[in-house]
Amino acid sequence: MAESWSFLDTAECNFRPLVVIELAKGTKEETIAWFTKRIVDKKGDGGAQLLIKPLVTENGHENIYLVGASHLRLLLGAETVGLVKECNDNSMRTFTYSSRKTFKDFADDNHNFLTMAECQYIIKHELENLRAKNEKMIPGYPQAKLYPGKSIVRRLLTSGILIQIFPLHDREELKKLRHSWYGRVKIGYQPLDDIRCYFGETIALYFGFLEYFTFALIPMAVIGIPYYVFAWEDYDKYVMFATFNLLWSTVILEVWKRICAILTYRWGTLLMKRQFEEPRPGFHGVLGINPVTGREEPVYSSLKRQLRIYLVSLPFVCLCLYFSLYVMMIYFDLEQWALDYHKENESDFSSLMLYVPSIIYAVVIEVMNRIYRYAAEFLTSWENHRLESSYQNHLILKVLVFNFLNCFASLFYIAFVLFDMKLLRQSLATLLITSQILNQFAESLLPYWLQKRHNKRMKKRVCSQKTDADLSLVEQVNMEKEMGTYLDTFDDYLELFLQFGYVSLFSCVYPLAAVFAVLNNITEIYSDALKMCRVYKRPFAEPTANIGVWQLAFETMSVISVVTNCMLIGMSPQVDALFPDSKIDLVLTVALVEHLLLAVKFIMAFVIPDKPRDIQMKLAKLEFESLEALKQQQMTLAAESLEE
Amino acid sequence: MAESWSFLDTAECNFRPLVVIELAKGTKEETIAWFTKRIVDKKGDGGAQLLIKPLVTENGHENIYLVGASHLRLLLGAETVGLVKECNDNSMRTFTYSSRKTFKDFADDNHNFLTMAECQYIIKHELENLRAKNEKMIPGYPQAKLYPGKSIVRRLLTSGILIQIFPLHDREELKKLRHSWYGRVKIGYQPLDDIRCYFGETIALYFGFLEYFTFALIPMAVIGIPYYVFAWEDYDKYVMFATFNLLWSTVILEVWKRICAILTYRWGTLLMKRQFEEPRPGFHGVLGINPVTGREEPVYSSLKRQLRIYLVSLPFVCLCLYFSLYVMMIYFDLEQWALDYHKENESDFSSLMLYVPSIIYAVVIEVMNRIYRYAAEFLTSWENHRLESSYQNHLILKVLVFNFLNCFASLFYIAFVLFDMKLLRQSLATLLITSQILNQFAESLLPYWLQKRHNKRMKKRVCSQKTDADLSLVEQVNMEKEMGTYLDTFDDYLELFLQFGYVSLFSCVYPLAAVFAVLNNITEIYSDALKMCRVYKRPFAEPTANIGVWQLAFETMSVISVVTNCMLIGMSPQVDALFPDSKIDLVLTVALVEHLLLAVKFIMAFVIPDKPRDIQMKLAKLEFESLEALKQQQMTLAAESLEE
Repeated sequence: MAESWSFLDTAECNFRPLVVIELAKGTKEETIAWFTKRIVDKKGDGGAQLLIKPLVTENGHENIYLVGASHLRLLLGAETVGLVKECNDNSMRTFTYSSRKTFKDFADDNHNFLTMAECQYIIKHELENLRAKNEKMIPGYPQAKLYPGKSIVRRLLTSGILIQIFPLHDREELKKLRHSWYGRVKIGYQPLDDIRCYFGETIALYFGFLEYFTFALIPMAVIGIPYYVFAWEDYDKYVMFATFNLLWSTVILEVWKRICAILTYRWGTLLMKRQFEEPRPGFHGVLGINPVTGREEPVYSSLKRQLRIYLVSLPFVCLCLYFSLYVMMIYFDLEQWALDYHKENESDFSSLMLYVPSIIYAVVIEVMNRIYRYAAEFLTSWENHRLESSYQNHLILKVLVFNFLNCFASLFYIAFVLFDMKLLRQSLATLLITSQILNQFAESLLPYWLQKRHNKRMKKRVCSQKTDADLSLVEQVNMEKEMGTYLDTFDDYLELFLQFGYVSLFSCVYPLAAVFAVLNNITEIYSDALKMCRVYKRPFAEPTANIGVWQLAFETMSVISVVTNCMLIGMSPQVDALFPDSKIDLVLTVALVEHLLLAVKFIMAFVIPDKPRDIQMKLAKLEFESLEALKQQQMTLAAESLEE
Repeated sequence: MAESWSFLDTAECNFRPLVVIELAKGTKEETIAWFTKRIVDKKGDGGAQLLIKPLVTENGHENIYLVGASHLRLLLGAETVGLVKECNDNSMRTFTYSSRKTFKDFADDNHNFLTMAECQYIIKHELENLRAKNEKMIPGYPQAKLYPGKSIVRRLLTSGILIQIFPLHDREELKKLRHSWYGRVKIGYQPLDDIRCYFGETIALYFGFLEYFTFALIPMAVIGIPYYVFAWEDYDKYVMFATFNLLWSTVILEVWKRICAILTYRWGTLLMKRQFEEPRPGFHGVLGINPVTGREEPVYSSLKRQLRIYLVSLPFVCLCLYFSLYVMMIYFDLEQWALDYHKENESDFSSLMLYVPSIIYAVVIEVMNRIYRYAAEFLTSWENHRLESSYQNHLILKVLVFNFLNCFASLFYIAFVLFDMKLLRQSLATLLITSQILNQFAESLLPYWLQKRHNKRMKKRVCSQKTDADLSLVEQVNMEKEMGTYLDTFDDYLELFLQFGYVSLFSCVYPLAAVFAVLNNITEIYSDALKMCRVYKRPFAEPTANIGVWQLAFETMSVISVVTNCMLIGMSPQVDALFPDSKIDLVLTVALVEHLLLAVKFIMAFVIPDKPRDIQMKLAKLEFESLEALKQQQMTLAAESLEE
């Protein structure tokens, strides 16, 4: 193999910096020399065959390195990571260097065939797959152990020698993107394809979902407005609204799967084969042989993990949920006490006291959420999942359940224990609107202020009136390395998930929720866009084919909302009046309707295909071709082996 | 390609007949000559490269042909159909001729490497894939049109020239199988691997499911017996029994998926890539280009099919269901009338009259079932599905819904409209036991009698005292071609499905149902085995990885049974007595318990992995290896293309 990669000249003249590596101050020279050598080394010698240059600032050497790669190296890397690109005949195919001429827009001198985000993803992949050969430790750091096949970058990160790796912004591209995304004041679709080219599929898919979800809420909002305007209180109108909501929420979730398939087919990630996933950085265990790859790596008994999950994590989560319910009950007691106090001695102080329980409860919930988040992260990490994806799923599940309870338990209590519809509507409106305002502040105003302060500080340091685009590379790197890191889309999806809960769980009580949700999401698009472009470091692109566990979460929420809405309608006095003689008939009718609605939901989810027909056809065609190719290949091989 | 297949000598000396082709009497010589030539022709010339011999009987030529193939041809065919076999290192891999030495038990002179069922499957596949080249019609039959790529055998079948193709029994093997399967009187597992070798995976999986299901019912039966013996009527015992039943039925269905994965992994079908499915024989349409394969074949608009399904089939099915309910109501009226009549004039005649409605109803249901089955087949055929699998799914769904209603509607009516638990228990017992006796008769006694008659007739014709094993080939073929054709496992699964319904839907009313089901299934295994070995033609082996739509059907049944059992328990007088003041509390409690049980069911189904861990690991290992191989191959190709 050494020969086949040898022609890649690492000393290409037009070095384009793509990724920044920041090492800890005071890292030993010996370590740096070894690490950079491994990065530059030929593929055949076990290196990454990338280009690396130190960033020299006016203060001298700051242990910051720029990584790039030759055009040819990137193309071969695209093949290794299995990128899927569009061909000249408009079909999507896995890119291979040998068939490069058949791909759309490919030319040997066209350096834009791969987007910058793709190049950075390739470099990240190559760096992470740089593996120890026979080193027993990181040179200069005997405590940082290595074994054959261990990812060097991951060990450097866990032992604190490597501070961060991040991709550089492209000031020109970013400016264009900003302009088309939120620069112009116009109503229209977001430039999803441009977002995908710049930020990668995971983030583009989040914005796609946000946009789709906003459009999908519009019918609900439009139908909800007359309920507010004309103050409709007829039960039959509420029943109609709730029924429409329930079926509609099923439809939009099913249709999203189809739209998601269209998007990710166009972006190539629907067809992309997942690489074999490496153990996540925090995974530890006794050195052993991985039964799948046959490589030496830490192994950890699955039974032990199951025991930790079911004997520790599960009881802990249940305890937290119980505690959260307990706190809620205290809040209701306090609320009652404040009300009684206000009734007894009516004064300014007592009417102020009315707000105290809510404020205390809001603060306590926020604190609990944060503590629980840390605990969940600690526990999930302690469960020692081998794969990042399974770590994420377990973490998301834990956090989701707790957040769901904290947000909605009080509403459930008001609705189904206190039976106070007026209070429910009021609480729902308060919770929805305050959470939206808080979020908008935290995501839009705060970032704007941060950006302003940041610009000022930067100007002070650079002492010039340059605009962003004119910044030198050194200034750009120094500026970006101080920016916050955008971790993942979790919080953004969580916000949408809770919003979906407010809109659908009690839709027949407060039809206006959808209107607020739509208004919020329109500004949300802009504030999130601002956040991505201005506030945070550029994140590495991450290929993905769907929104993963969130699809399941939204679908579960829509099943729960069938139950809650049916109960709410059954409890309304108008429906009550229809069954003057027998309350049992009422309850049975409601239960019957609920079961029918659930059945319709499941049948609809089953009947609507997850992928549009043309995507299905394209996928079938691709599979047919690969089967045919395999058959052809096997026949040739068989013939050859017989002729020997 | 012509060269690579040319070394296959079609004139091999040891011709082993595997498959029988029966042509219509009076088929033109020209047609026969063309058809046999196409079968014998070299692969490179578009033939199937098989061996074919006419069967010459004492009456001369009867248009019956025997098809076989050389050992080498079969091995190459195994590669084409993608058979998965066990390797020397105990892993399962797709068989390729070039890597044949690495497979367990492979030797160039070992003609048992492929089982006879596999050989027959390969020959069937090759025959069905014999395609027209530039023939415009079948020679001698201008009305039987052909077009390039059309399967010749399918056209011959639809135009009535080809009467049947069926695989031959292997008298020796069959004797051994019969002995180990049901010959000895011993309690133990069935020889599933031998059944699979002889009859293929679909049938072996049915027997595997039947056996598993019988074992899974034993705990229910054991718990059910004391209820009968001690005449327990306490509601808490019934609640316990029902709860156990509900959770147990979820567990057994989930565990079956795992066992199914273990079986089909061992048999290789779990890993087998499905070939691109050909249009089913009855499919018709305008000649066009298939967008997936690019081949010329009939195409039919998917929209038209959807319209036919939703505008004709769906209303028709609903109408039939309504009609069936209507007939049921008439039955109940008749029943009431007979009861009144008996009360008024008590006589022998009147007490005989009591049975008349039930008998009429049973006959009417049987007639309706049969008419409906024809109508469903006609409609599904008229819907013009391109694929056999989608035809089957639509047919199964239609028949399933109707059968479900016919079997259980009267029970539902008795339980939830008449509220008559005693009558329910009585009807349930009557229905279960009579349906089991009828089935046992139709599947065990009738076949036995058929076999006796068949033996006699055969003996008369052969006029000798030979045993089965000594029969000449001519006699064997003549005997087997007259045997009935085993269509598919549909009726067998349907019987189990309805039985599962009797056991689980009203389990808390009649705990003894499981006992009867277990007893029935034990004899069912023997009678079904007898049927397969003695009554029917040998069926072609059909690779399959799971029980398909039946898994879904059983799961749906277990969800419905949660609802029915909760309702039944809620209606019992003992539970009623617990809520003396408020019936609403009772209904709400029942509804709450039901929702909790459903939630537990879904969570359990979600948490229990569908495949055991070691199978998951093996699959992951295989996928990892294929990805690695692909990467390696691409690197080599890239290097080669650069060096050019």
